[in-house]
Amino acid sequence: MNPKEIKNKLRELKSESGSHSPSIGTMLNEIPELKIKVDACFLSNPYATDLFIEKFNALAGSKELRDILEYYPPQNYDVAKKVSKIIKIDSENIFVGNGAIEVIQSAMHNFAGKNIALPIPTFSSYYEFKRPTSNIEYYQLDKINNYQINIEDYINFIKAKKCDTAILINPNNPTGEFVSTNSIKHFLNSLKDLDLIIIDESFIHFAYEDDDFKLAQNESLIYQYPNLIIIKSMSKDFGIAGIRAGYGIMNKERVKQLVSNGYLWNVSGLCDYFFSTYGETEFQEKYEQERKRYILDTISFVDDLNKIVGIKVYQTKANFVLIEILSNQISSFDMVVELLVDKGIYIRDCADKIGLNGEFVRIASRSKDENIIIIQAIKDFANQHLS
Amino acid sequence: MNPKEIKNKLRELKSESGSHSPSIGTMLNEIPELKIKVDACFLSNPYATDLFIEKFNALAGSKELRDILEYYPPQNYDVAKKVSKIIKIDSENIFVGNGAIEVIQSAMHNFAGKNIALPIPTFSSYYEFKRPTSNIEYYQLDKINNYQINIEDYINFIKAKKCDTAILINPNNPTGEFVSTNSIKHFLNSLKDLDLIIIDESFIHFAYEDDDFKLAQNESLIYQYPNLIIIKSMSKDFGIAGIRAGYGIMNKERVKQLVSNGYLWNVSGLCDYFFSTYGETEFQEKYEQERKRYILDTISFVDDLNKIVGIKVYQTKANFVLIEILSNQISSFDMVVELLVDKGIYIRDCADKIGLNGEFVRIASRSKDENIIIIQAIKDFANQHLS
Repeated sequence: MNPKEIKNKLRELKSESGSHSPSIGTMLNEIPELKIKVDACFLSNPYATDLFIEKFNALAGSKELRDILEYYPPQNYDVAKKVSKIIKIDSENIFVGNGAIEVIQSAMHNFAGKNIALPIPTFSSYYEFKRPTSNIEYYQLDKINNYQINIEDYINFIKAKKCDTAILINPNNPTGEFVSTNSIKHFLNSLKDLDLIIIDESFIHFAYEDDDFKLAQNESLIYQYPNLIIIKSMSKDFGIAGIRAGYGIMNKERVKQLVSNGYLWNVSGLCDYFFSTYGETEFQEKYEQERKRYILDTISFVDDLNKIVGIKVYQTKANFVLIEILSNQISSFDMVVELLVDKGIYIRDCADKIGLNGEFVRIASRSKDENIIIIQAIKDFANQHLS
Repeated sequence: MNPKEIKNKLRELKSESGSHSPSIGTMLNEIPELKIKVDACFLSNPYATDLFIEKFNALAGSKELRDILEYYPPQNYDVAKKVSKIIKIDSENIFVGNGAIEVIQSAMHNFAGKNIALPIPTFSSYYEFKRPTSNIEYYQLDKINNYQINIEDYINFIKAKKCDTAILINPNNPTGEFVSTNSIKHFLNSLKDLDLIIIDESFIHFAYEDDDFKLAQNESLIYQYPNLIIIKSMSKDFGIAGIRAGYGIMNKERVKQLVSNGYLWNVSGLCDYFFSTYGETEFQEKYEQERKRYILDTISFVDDLNKIVGIKVYQTKANFVLIEILSNQISSFDMVVELLVDKGIYIRDCADKIGLNGEFVRIASRSKDENIIIIQAIKDFANQHLS
């Protein structure tokens, strides 16, 4: 197929898949000619992946690697002890998950109440994994306010709707908006009566409140607020989604309940190895350098995007940006197709995200070199279609 | 500590931990002098581990390995397609789990009824992971009958107790008893009215019904019995417990229910890679050789055990044997301690297993060389204490 035929085929696939966009897997299956040079859907720090892979490769042929694969991994409690040393939270307050998604699922199934408040647009698993008997009250973030959350207004909404459960993704996905630690404290203080508050900090390693990019640390709040669960993914900050590693920080009784009722051996040997590695001082120091380097690259990436005419770049403190296409002629899917077919750059169509009004794509910050390629491609696209 | 002091310390730990034995982790922590030469608690085919490790080591430094660790693994449905090709069952009937334990947990939480029949002694997770609202009717296997199950009697028990759910582990752990395919069919035919029947085939690769050691294959029964869930672990037959890979075969609606309600991304990149490897014809052929070699070694191991005076070796078609100590002077814990401290051989104390009456240990068949070491040690032990 030539590029034009590929684009037509992609539009055909799109119309077959309804309001959703076809998945990358479907597209690559149907159109093997497609080549992805830069995957700017993928939300991870590639420098951190390099760091971990280098360590892991050195294990080849060792007894340690064999042990990781052959033997039963430690039980949940024992892996929690490793996490405990890293984040300085009592291990009895830590539930280690097979990816953050398992922590989300187990929290939604075991602790979420009947009426759940959820700001949108956001990460879809929170509404997809609710129990059938639960209701979700969607709190629409205001476009006029650039989809930034007004915490006071969200608190009032939660109270007015009589929610027993509230969720906050911080930074939020796909908007990138970040709620400061002070606002989080106010939020928790105002909602002590709720059964459950989930704060999802999957992207918090990319956020910062000062010029040193010091990591925002809210973990110890769980001691003060027994209704709070903080959820943390390792896939984004460490770029190791294939390993499936994440954790939840919560009151001890909830950890006990989860582990005793089925999540005792849910962590793989590789996940256990990752947390051992993460616990090493030398690894932490190197990681901290890579984290800051990546934040700097991302800031410069967003600056460059901001200079491009024809798109609106929403403010972000995550490792991606939400971009609105300022044209009535071009859909988000058009932009995804153009960049994919002509430039080999894959960006995230946000057409399936509920709560967005307009044509939106989400673009991840990748390595410095890849970001240069992305910027040039979007410049070209904007010149051609949006000016 | 000298050997005598170590033994005393172990007895002290035992008395501290009540009816359970201290875990190996606890023992090694408290007594760093302990050295395990042969781990005969661990129920896996070591030849299969060799086979997989050899392939995996060759990945070091490759882009493929990086992809496994860095990217999100395929969704549950896509990994199920790989399993489907291997076991020749429609992928829509396959739910891939983060270890068989996740399949057990999800089945017990989502599909088990209010009154569950469970033969004992057996694998403890089936009673530990039941929902708090479920009741378990324990079906005591008869010691006079060597803990072999009488299927007709079990069926009558299930009906008499008005159970809506029945569980059968085949081969059973720790007894090693095996129920033939014909009896399984009779069992299923007699219990069509039940909501759920779980058959756990974690150890079935070590069982056989003919001299060729042909694999017993009951999977296609799920098409005929919509209440049936067959559960399969990969940890034992392939010796890769650290990877966490298993699956359940069940009716399509149940797979859909599990996947849509939270188990969409529950499989790691490494688990996906394992199933890809398992799908390769060459790997399957080599594995089949190693499976039969291991069964032969196990048969000869059990034969040798049978010659030892002072112990009763229960008939097995799994990769382990249940052994009863024929002495009023020696407890199972005594035997574990002696073998561990004096010979470096770690065997499983069965004192915590409900449903066993007497002093029992479970010993795994390991590699041929290790089995020779185990046999000699048990001979020495029996000569010293049991004759």
